[in-house]
Amino acid sequence: MTYQELMALTVKKISHQRYDEIKQRWDSISKPLDGLGDFEKIIAKIYAIHDTEHIEKLKKALVIMCADHGIVEEGVSQCGQEVTYQVTKLLGENRSTASSMAGYAGVDCIPVDIGVNTQDTFPGVRDRKVRCGSRNFAKEAALTPEEALEAIYTGIEIAKECKKEGYHILATGEMGIGNTTSGTALLCALTGAKVSDVVGRGAGLSDEGLQRKQKVIEEALKKYELIPERIQNQNEDSILPEYAFRALCQVGGLDIAGMTGLFIGGSICSLPVMIDGAISAVSALLAECLVPGSVSFMIASHSGRERATGIVIKKLGLKAFLNGDMALGEGTGALMALPLLDMAHDFFLHATTFAGGGIRQYTRLSNDTGSIAD
Amino acid sequence: MTYQELMALTVKKISHQRYDEIKQRWDSISKPLDGLGDFEKIIAKIYAIHDTEHIEKLKKALVIMCADHGIVEEGVSQCGQEVTYQVTKLLGENRSTASSMAGYAGVDCIPVDIGVNTQDTFPGVRDRKVRCGSRNFAKEAALTPEEALEAIYTGIEIAKECKKEGYHILATGEMGIGNTTSGTALLCALTGAKVSDVVGRGAGLSDEGLQRKQKVIEEALKKYELIPERIQNQNEDSILPEYAFRALCQVGGLDIAGMTGLFIGGSICSLPVMIDGAISAVSALLAECLVPGSVSFMIASHSGRERATGIVIKKLGLKAFLNGDMALGEGTGALMALPLLDMAHDFFLHATTFAGGGIRQYTRLSNDTGSIAD
Repeated sequence: MTYQELMALTVKKISHQRYDEIKQRWDSISKPLDGLGDFEKIIAKIYAIHDTEHIEKLKKALVIMCADHGIVEEGVSQCGQEVTYQVTKLLGENRSTASSMAGYAGVDCIPVDIGVNTQDTFPGVRDRKVRCGSRNFAKEAALTPEEALEAIYTGIEIAKECKKEGYHILATGEMGIGNTTSGTALLCALTGAKVSDVVGRGAGLSDEGLQRKQKVIEEALKKYELIPERIQNQNEDSILPEYAFRALCQVGGLDIAGMTGLFIGGSICSLPVMIDGAISAVSALLAECLVPGSVSFMIASHSGRERATGIVIKKLGLKAFLNGDMALGEGTGALMALPLLDMAHDFFLHATTFAGGGIRQYTRLSNDTGSIAD
Repeated sequence: MTYQELMALTVKKISHQRYDEIKQRWDSISKPLDGLGDFEKIIAKIYAIHDTEHIEKLKKALVIMCADHGIVEEGVSQCGQEVTYQVTKLLGENRSTASSMAGYAGVDCIPVDIGVNTQDTFPGVRDRKVRCGSRNFAKEAALTPEEALEAIYTGIEIAKECKKEGYHILATGEMGIGNTTSGTALLCALTGAKVSDVVGRGAGLSDEGLQRKQKVIEEALKKYELIPERIQNQNEDSILPEYAFRALCQVGGLDIAGMTGLFIGGSICSLPVMIDGAISAVSALLAECLVPGSVSFMIASHSGRERATGIVIKKLGLKAFLNGDMALGEGTGALMALPLLDMAHDFFLHATTFAGGGIRQYTRLSNDTGSIAD
């Protein structure tokens, strides 16, 4: 895929008629109007994106993008790259944290090696390696444009495959030691957030490590002229795709580019994609910068411990319904969220309606039934 | 139960040793420390309250207190008392909203008629009627002290029965048209919140109805000298039990008193009790005023659409992990929360540990493992 081809992508239409129809079905259930709050809107959004009148059971997948980050050379992480290797291996063997929770939640786990720093392949992991880890962005750009495009394309392809396989919703996850450094750099580049306000401890970093991480990010933003002020002076909506793409190449990573592709893929093949934590949220923001409108296909799940998640979700105009102070990675925040959608959907399908003998009548006070953008 | 007997109740001790032991078991799982955030703490709290080293599967019940409120005479609700009757009947027939969701979530539903305004009994509903609805507090005190005590005692008894039946956690729910008016009046009486800041539309109230509701509450607070200023001038922790009890009698209701009893009951027989929405949260606050320390046995679930919920949960020093803008009643917010505890607990029991071949090592940077009060 060339950059021009990426820019030429357009998101699918979402059926507003279907959305309204599903909200009306919610209103026909014997309960206070909008009583299930966000969950009514999310179920309506899923139906509207697929433009379907019936889903028997939500078919769900978690795609976990695994990649290494050259920036770990700078001492920005408690763990080394060997942990990316080991967890990717565990994911393939269905023995990781995410595997365990996905099994419980009835979610198919799809780990993807998009850039683990090894020549080995991992049984059970899709081999879509673009390169053995990104470069150390303290020294040089993390990715070439070609590499970033290949990683994005990989995500798009996987979303399309999942759509073909009948999935109704994709959750996004990542495994990549060092990726909170890349993610934070991108967040600051795209939103103008101050590094010191959003930098976090990742999987557990000492005070000294945290200072080093902050310095590494600040220096990179300066070096690559990804200067927050430049963005803040522009109109909020004016993040140019070429700027976003440049930032991804300069300080991003292959897992982030892959997830960006998943979000874009969902929007061009009518498949809802759920945001997990900070890294996933930054990828979602990148997707919206590159292919405007893709946000309409995104569903927020939780606002994790890293402050970045909440900032990005708000910027995207979305809302997280889980707030459990989680910071586990591998898409586990989204995995905790998915059973709630199943529960709401089960209720949607089987609850007593007024017509079916329900006895509560409520009157809608306004015509505000929410919208797909909610 | 006399008021003196109520005052003589003391909460059970919670095993801090057990809490720390369970947190250490969380730390032995191959994942970032505290990665599951609130859920690690809640599971540790449940184990510590029961002081047990193993729970195979969380046995869960939702107790729904059903009662009418005389205040509906003042036009503070969209629905009439017939709706309390009808939903209580549906609950007994296992056909209500909560029944449907409880079935899905593997939660036993225990509806209790503690004060529905009828001489009828409801098959499938526990008959513990104290009186056919509370009185209209715009005219006279809602309950006599004896009635309030009987309702509290009912809640305590049910919690004790549930403990004997092997439940590990109780969720609290209510069904009572008009109870957001009582609940809001109590909230203002106990926290000093301004009525106009916290009054809400309940199950859907017009602008006119909302103004009426606000006026009814403001007048009652004045009439009964439940004047917010009096409380604000005191130390935050100085809500006297006799003041709280008087407020309950004057502007409360039987469902609220019953739930207050559930929270107290949990704390005197070592059973965690989950807070649902605004009415349940106000009952939790009353319990803490009447039997200090009972908050340690409470678990918050969601911050519902009514602003009151968040205010009370914060005042209790707890934290809700769900934020789905729900306003359905019947304990449905807690019902959405319980499957997440099941999922976290399953993970706790079955996840890969370091000893079992897990490969991630994380270092705890401080000794802060949280505490039962979290």
